[in-house]
Amino acid sequence: MTKAEFPTPLPLATPALGEPYLLTPGPLTTSKATKEAMLRDWGSWDGAFNRVTAEVRQHLLHMAGVQDDSFACVPLQGSGSYSVEAALATAIPRDGKALVLMNGAYGQRATKTLEYLGRAFITLDKGDYLPPQPDEVDALLKANPDVTHVFLVHCETSSGILNPLRAIADVVKAHGKRLIIDAMSTFGAVPVTVDDIAFDVLVSSANKCIEGIPGFGFVIIRRSVLEAAKGRANSLSLDLYEQWVYMERTGQWRFTPPTHSVVAFHKALEQHANEGGVQGRLARYTRNRDVLVSGMRELGFRTLLEDCWLSPIITTFFCPEHPDFQFMRFYDELKTRQFIIYPGKLTQAESFRIGCIGQIDEYVVHQLLRAIADSLIAMGVDMRKTPD
Amino acid sequence: MTKAEFPTPLPLATPALGEPYLLTPGPLTTSKATKEAMLRDWGSWDGAFNRVTAEVRQHLLHMAGVQDDSFACVPLQGSGSYSVEAALATAIPRDGKALVLMNGAYGQRATKTLEYLGRAFITLDKGDYLPPQPDEVDALLKANPDVTHVFLVHCETSSGILNPLRAIADVVKAHGKRLIIDAMSTFGAVPVTVDDIAFDVLVSSANKCIEGIPGFGFVIIRRSVLEAAKGRANSLSLDLYEQWVYMERTGQWRFTPPTHSVVAFHKALEQHANEGGVQGRLARYTRNRDVLVSGMRELGFRTLLEDCWLSPIITTFFCPEHPDFQFMRFYDELKTRQFIIYPGKLTQAESFRIGCIGQIDEYVVHQLLRAIADSLIAMGVDMRKTPD
Ligand SMILES: Cc1ncc(COP(=O)(O)O)c(C=O)c1O
Ligand SMILES: Cc1ncc(COP(=O)(O)O)c(C=O)c1O
Repeated sequence: MTKAEFPTPLPLATPALGEPYLLTPGPLTTSKATKEAMLRDWGSWDGAFNRVTAEVRQHLLHMAGVQDDSFACVPLQGSGSYSVEAALATAIPRDGKALVLMNGAYGQRATKTLEYLGRAFITLDKGDYLPPQPDEVDALLKANPDVTHVFLVHCETSSGILNPLRAIADVVKAHGKRLIIDAMSTFGAVPVTVDDIAFDVLVSSANKCIEGIPGFGFVIIRRSVLEAAKGRANSLSLDLYEQWVYMERTGQWRFTPPTHSVVAFHKALEQHANEGGVQGRLARYTRNRDVLVSGMRELGFRTLLEDCWLSPIITTFFCPEHPDFQFMRFYDELKTRQFIIYPGKLTQAESFRIGCIGQIDEYVVHQLLRAIADSLIAMGVDMRKTPD
Repeated sequence: MTKAEFPTPLPLATPALGEPYLLTPGPLTTSKATKEAMLRDWGSWDGAFNRVTAEVRQHLLHMAGVQDDSFACVPLQGSGSYSVEAALATAIPRDGKALVLMNGAYGQRATKTLEYLGRAFITLDKGDYLPPQPDEVDALLKANPDVTHVFLVHCETSSGILNPLRAIADVVKAHGKRLIIDAMSTFGAVPVTVDDIAFDVLVSSANKCIEGIPGFGFVIIRRSVLEAAKGRANSLSLDLYEQWVYMERTGQWRFTPPTHSVVAFHKALEQHANEGGVQGRLARYTRNRDVLVSGMRELGFRTLLEDCWLSPIITTFFCPEHPDFQFMRFYDELKTRQFIIYPGKLTQAESFRIGCIGQIDEYVVHQLLRAIADSLIAMGVDMRKTPD
C-alpha cells in the first residue's frame, strides 16, 4: 500500500494548548519525573528491565506490610479490571461461592465478572451510597455457610465511599472465610497491611494512588492461594498462576510487558517513598479532600455522602437543581480553565465527581474552587438564588 | 504505614548510561517524537482523548484497505496475546472448530489459547522452520469438513519465517472457511488488505511495525462476525464484542485505556504515514534485513531459513559451534556496545534473533555488524577457524 492509497490524509487530533489537571479517579495527573521515565525504550527480555520489575513487586509487598514469603505480588498487563478478573478466577475454586458486597459500579462489575467465570455468588446490594455493615455481612455468612469468599471494594470509586474494611475483614475472618479486596483506588494512600487486615487477595493498579501511568494492574495474593490455583483460570492471558510461575522462574513477564508504564511506575514508587509512603500520601489527599469539600459547600454544592463516609480519593457532588446548570456545560467551562472533572456514576441522581488523587495539592484545589466559582458565573448559575 | 516502616529503602535500578538500540521483535526502538507524546496526561473520558482513539481506529482500517463499514477495528488493553485470545473467542463459535497452522511459538500459543477457551481444533505442525504449504492446508480441509476457521501466523516471529499468507488465504476461501491472521509482527510493514486477502480477523499490536509503545493490541474484524458474537466470550475483560459496542456507543474504552500508549501510537501512525505508509516501512525494513543478512554471512553466521522464507521483520541465526561462543556472553558484549538482541526460540538448535523493525536503518545495521565483529574478537571467536 502506498501513501497515495490513503486518499484523505487522516486529520490527527491536535492536543489543546496547556495541560489540564485531571481531577479524575485515574488516569490522573502524574509528575513530570514519572512521565520522563518513559523517554527511553527498554528491552523486555533484558536484565535491566527485569530488575525494575523485581523491585516494583518487592516494593508493593513492602507497602502491604509483607515481611516474609507468605504473599506474592503478581503484576498483570491490562487495566485494573483485568487484574480483578484474574484474581477472582485464581482465588475462587470452580466450586466456590462468593458473597459480593455491592454499593456501586465496581461491586457490580465483580458480579458480572463472576458470571463470565461461572462462579456462584450471592450479593449484598446497598444501592448507590450506603456502606455494607459488618452485622449484615455476619448475618449473610451465617445464613449462607456455603459461601467461601467475600469480595469488598475498599473505596467504591463510583460514589467515593470508603467502605468499612477493617470491621468487615474481622467478620469475614471470624467466619473462617476468605477476603478479596478491590483496593484499586486506595492502595498506596489508605493503609492496608497484612498484619492489620486479614485478606487473601488485594487488587490495585498502576494509575491510581501510586500515581503511575495506566498499563497494568497487580495482585497481592497469599502464596498458598496461588499454589492451589494451577489450572483454575479460564483465560490464558489472565492466568495469574502461570504469570506468577513464569515470573518467578525467569524474572520476565509472560507476554510483552507495558515496559514504559512499568518503568514510570518504578519512578512513581520512588516519589511515593520520598513523600513519606502511604501516610504521606494519605495526608496530602486528605488535605485535598478537606479543602475541596468545604470550598464546594461554601459555593452551595452538596455532597452525596455523609462526612463519615467521604474518602480521601474522590468526592461525589449533586448537580445543583438550578435550571441553568448542565453538567456538560460545567465540564467544558472547567476544561477551558484547565481542569478536567468526572461525570457521576449514580443510578438515581444527577451528580459529578472530583478526584483528590494524583499530582495535585491544596493550592491546586484552591485554584479549582476559583475556576468553579467563575464557571458558575459564566453559566449564570447563582446557587443562592436556586428556587427551592 | 510510615516511611520508617520500610526498613531497607528499596534499591531502585539505575538505568545504564546511554540508550541501547533494541534489535528485538518489540518492544522496540521508537522515535523520540513517539515517546515525547507521552509527556502529557490525558483524561480517559475527555473528548480530546476520544478523538485520538477514533483516529487511531480509522487509520488502522485504512491501512488494512477497508473502504466501507464491512470491518471494524477494536483496540484492546493488554499485550498482543490478549487480542489474539479475544479474537479467537469472538470469531469462533463455541461449536466451531479451528485448524491451527503451526510453525513456532505463536502458533503453539494459539492452540493453548483454544484449550483455555474450550474450542475444538486440529493442527498442522511444521516444526521450527518450515512453512505450512497450501496443498497441505487443502488436504486437511478436505479431510476435515467440520473445520470452520483457519488460524495462520503471518510472520512466525519465533523463527522469523514469513508464511505464505496469500496462497493459504486462497485455499481457505476456496473451501468456504474463515481465516484468522495473527499479523502481530507484520501489520504496518507487510501489506495485508481486505481486497487482496480474504480474512475475517486480523490481530496486531501497538509495539511492532507501527513502532508504538506496548499497552494494547487491536483486532480488525468483519463486522458481521462481531455482530454474531454477543455472549460468546468467557472473559469480561477480553469480551471484544462488548468492547466494540461500548466504544461505538460512547467513543470511550470500556475500562481504563493505556492513555499514554494510545497517544504515542497516534503519533507513531503520523510518522508511519510520513514514511510512505506500509510500502515505505517495508522498504526500510527490507534494506535492514538485506544489510544484516549479507553482513552476518560475511562474518560466518548462518541463517536458519532459506532466503525465500526470510521476513523483513526478524532473522534467526544459528549460534556458531565454536567452543568459545556462548550466547549470554555475546549478548552482554553487544549490550556494552549499545545493541540489544534477542535469544532464539527454537526447540532444536542453539540460535539467536536480530530484529529489523523499529527506528533503525541500514546505517544502524552497519554499526551493529561492526559491534558484532568486535564482540567476536573480544570473545576470541574466529569463525574461520571453527573446527569442522
Ligand atoms: C474500585 C475500582 N475497581 C475497579 C476499577 C476498574 O479499573 P480499570 O478501569 O483500570 O479497569 C476501578 C477504576 O476506576 C476502581 O476504581
Ligand atoms: C506473531 C506473534 N504473535 C503473538 C505475539 C504475542 O504478543 P505479546 O507478546 O504482545 O502478547 C507476538 C509477540 O512477539 C508475535 O510476534
